[in-house]
Amino acid sequence: MTEFDCLLASGRKKHKISKADYQSAMETLRGPLLDLQQQLEEADKAVLIILAGVDGSGKGDILTLLNEWFDPRYMYTHAYGNPTGEESQRPRHWRYWMNMPVRGHLGLEVFGWYGQLFSDCLSGRMIPQQRDVELAHINRLEKTLVENGMPVIKIWLHLTQKQQTKKIRKLASKRDETATLTDSEKRHLKQYPDFIKVAETILQATQTEQADWLILNGYDANYRRLSIARHLVNRLSAIVSDQKSIPRQEPEIPLTTLAPVSPRLASVDLTGGLDKKTYLLRLNQQQHTLAQLTNQARHKGIGAILVFEGWDAAGKGGAIRRLTAALDARNYRVIPIAAPTVEEKAHHYLWRFWRQVPGNGQISLFDRSWYGRVLVERVEGLAQPVEWLRAYSEINEFEQELTGHGILVLKFWLHISKEEQLRRFAKRENTHYKRYKITADDYRNRSRWDAYEQAVEAMLARTDTATAPWHLIAAENKYIARIQIFERVITAYQDRLLRA
Amino acid sequence: MTEFDCLLASGRKKHKISKADYQSAMETLRGPLLDLQQQLEEADKAVLIILAGVDGSGKGDILTLLNEWFDPRYMYTHAYGNPTGEESQRPRHWRYWMNMPVRGHLGLEVFGWYGQLFSDCLSGRMIPQQRDVELAHINRLEKTLVENGMPVIKIWLHLTQKQQTKKIRKLASKRDETATLTDSEKRHLKQYPDFIKVAETILQATQTEQADWLILNGYDANYRRLSIARHLVNRLSAIVSDQKSIPRQEPEIPLTTLAPVSPRLASVDLTGGLDKKTYLLRLNQQQHTLAQLTNQARHKGIGAILVFEGWDAAGKGGAIRRLTAALDARNYRVIPIAAPTVEEKAHHYLWRFWRQVPGNGQISLFDRSWYGRVLVERVEGLAQPVEWLRAYSEINEFEQELTGHGILVLKFWLHISKEEQLRRFAKRENTHYKRYKITADDYRNRSRWDAYEQAVEAMLARTDTATAPWHLIAAENKYIARIQIFERVITAYQDRLLRA
Repeated sequence: MTEFDCLLASGRKKHKISKADYQSAMETLRGPLLDLQQQLEEADKAVLIILAGVDGSGKGDILTLLNEWFDPRYMYTHAYGNPTGEESQRPRHWRYWMNMPVRGHLGLEVFGWYGQLFSDCLSGRMIPQQRDVELAHINRLEKTLVENGMPVIKIWLHLTQKQQTKKIRKLASKRDETATLTDSEKRHLKQYPDFIKVAETILQATQTEQADWLILNGYDANYRRLSIARHLVNRLSAIVSDQKSIPRQEPEIPLTTLAPVSPRLASVDLTGGLDKKTYLLRLNQQQHTLAQLTNQARHKGIGAILVFEGWDAAGKGGAIRRLTAALDARNYRVIPIAAPTVEEKAHHYLWRFWRQVPGNGQISLFDRSWYGRVLVERVEGLAQPVEWLRAYSEINEFEQELTGHGILVLKFWLHISKEEQLRRFAKRENTHYKRYKITADDYRNRSRWDAYEQAVEAMLARTDTATAPWHLIAAENKYIARIQIFERVITAYQDRLLRA
Repeated sequence: MTEFDCLLASGRKKHKISKADYQSAMETLRGPLLDLQQQLEEADKAVLIILAGVDGSGKGDILTLLNEWFDPRYMYTHAYGNPTGEESQRPRHWRYWMNMPVRGHLGLEVFGWYGQLFSDCLSGRMIPQQRDVELAHINRLEKTLVENGMPVIKIWLHLTQKQQTKKIRKLASKRDETATLTDSEKRHLKQYPDFIKVAETILQATQTEQADWLILNGYDANYRRLSIARHLVNRLSAIVSDQKSIPRQEPEIPLTTLAPVSPRLASVDLTGGLDKKTYLLRLNQQQHTLAQLTNQARHKGIGAILVFEGWDAAGKGGAIRRLTAALDARNYRVIPIAAPTVEEKAHHYLWRFWRQVPGNGQISLFDRSWYGRVLVERVEGLAQPVEWLRAYSEINEFEQELTGHGILVLKFWLHISKEEQLRRFAKRENTHYKRYKITADDYRNRSRWDAYEQAVEAMLARTDTATAPWHLIAAENKYIARIQIFERVITAYQDRLLRA
């Protein structure tokens, strides 16, 4: 018997705790529970509790109790139904990201991301291979949450088939004298063996180091309540004391073990020019073509994300404006990324980008993006090495969810020479209404050109994936840069539409 | 000819400005435009620009230009398409509220809330009576935005039928040599007379003091660009200087002109008791009934908002927990209202409540609510008299939008005596895990009982509407209070389901 089998076995066993024992034990637990929540709130720490289990195991009772034990101002209860229109227009995990608790709050999720998975497995909508992909996604999701500071506590309330039958009959008899079962109750009873089979697969696959399941029998109300209260006191205490032991020892990163990066920036050909007339003519044609393509894509429900990164003054804004001039205003959104707001800081660093994921057929244009994590945050020391090193795979995972949903992801690095940058800074300073574009920050960034270059090369090497490739754009000449960008976008749309 | 006819007439006239004149004039305007935006940002002031007009009048061109003139980090461009699933599940104006610019930002809306109205009028989906209702709603919406600090600038780009035909043919000839019109272009040309008829009605009805339309001819690019730049410089300057003249002279409020309020709290009978056994039995029955009713309501798509207000320690949280124990966790959300967050403060005070408006079939339970505006904010001086006095009608308008969409709105005031409150405070202080519920604030509020009582009476009198009535609950005995609340909720659901 594996350790996991033992756990499930313990979930089958019935326990009984008397009312008096329960009440006296709870008297000593309620104070600590509330204190711990307050300490988490003061430490600005979010914790996610996922409560799942078989029907009739007392999940509703636990929900009501947790809302009584904890201060409801710093917690919320939530369960996912079938995806709404907005939700089904976006990658599967989008709604999970949208509902994450903010720092300082306890989130209580009934089934959480396991709900949709259970329902898809039970209905047969999902074949085993798809299920395994989703299980891997869930494990990576929980990993990134835990690693980025949001512990996940998972609780499974179990009942044997016999116990479930007894519970549900008892419930019916309480309802009225005829004790007739409702259709949904009958269905639940009949479904028990299938449900348990699905549960065993899911629980086993998601019994991870970073987020393990507490599996317990839900038959006796006092037993389940007390067990959960104790579990929460233990877990929350551990989280709080871990929080206190700052500065946390960051693991040593063996930087040398990372694959070496072959530089690509140096190979970008920055020479060449284009006369204005040819440029304008070509741009006009491209804008017409793009207007038609994006219109077709909208009808086919193909969303797109265009990411613009590049040196300061490389012409990101100008390129974006030429693109949007070809788009229907109902259909796109430009998202300029600055330092995160207070609200954004209260979430996982990817949250503010998840928020802007376009619906089917919509386009989001990012002026700077999540790559800030491995560029400015790396270079300026705003993220720890362990954080930005982790970010490469977190970002790849994020983009994989986007492209997996059918979103077109195009990433542009606008490259210019150090000399051209200086020329543009000077030009901006001489034009009154462009002066706002140039600040002391720009010159400071410039002085760290080499460090940035190293970060850019690493980014290009580690996040240039088959489904979401980087496009290096020679931006020394603005006309050429824009024409190139249009070409790439048009080609990508044409390819994508052929496959639609 | 009315003043409005003159305006429209001016929209028909063609103007021409040479390229040289345009460029030299714009040179002097771009600096001020950017400076004004920066001053607005520093003053933390939001401004909404609505850009509308006939097809071919150059709206897209203006969009691109505004994105060039202004700093895109502090502005956004947006246009509404057909309502998404999420949006069509909620009152018509919900999505407008969700997309309001935050303080410090310029919001640029293409057609804004006029888009859906135009499309509904043109398609005949909306009869004139419905149109007039919506026009009144829009005027009240703009009024509350302007009064609460968000000026609305509306621009209409006009073309005569002849000008439109010329423009659209020119566009087609630019596209390719055959100059074939697209289906959508043909439709627009054909629709012109209908479109103009609708536009005249809508523009005239929404040409208000608080938010007037600038109507101008869009035929000549330089003329429309320059006119808009000048208009924006004028309007934004006025807004900035108005902002600087703080402390702003608040208009004198003739309090005496408000209708006197007949007190209702004193008539609430606080006597009586209920034994625990009867209470539990009754509660259990009511919970079963409510579970069934809310289930039916969910299937019929009937949403509900339950508002809980009352004296501190009146038992709001306990009543809410008894209700939620009967509800499906996927179906409800409890929203405890505390002081607004930074993000919430950056919006209209009703924004954070609009955000929580439930979708069809969903339930939102508010532990305190928008009534804070006329209770704590009034009594503690957090809102100016002019603000909280205005709030009564703003709140009635808000609730009218909710009930108009078919949402069940139930408002509870939980009433207890001053003596009972003191007993409960003392009890809370003696139970360790309830101590967090009691703070210095509670005692301070208590010392202002009379002021609060006056505010409560005014609130009951001015916001007790036929569609969203107040329920006064005798909460001196918690059992009686809960049973009463269940009764009201059950009756309301039964009535509503009969009408569904």
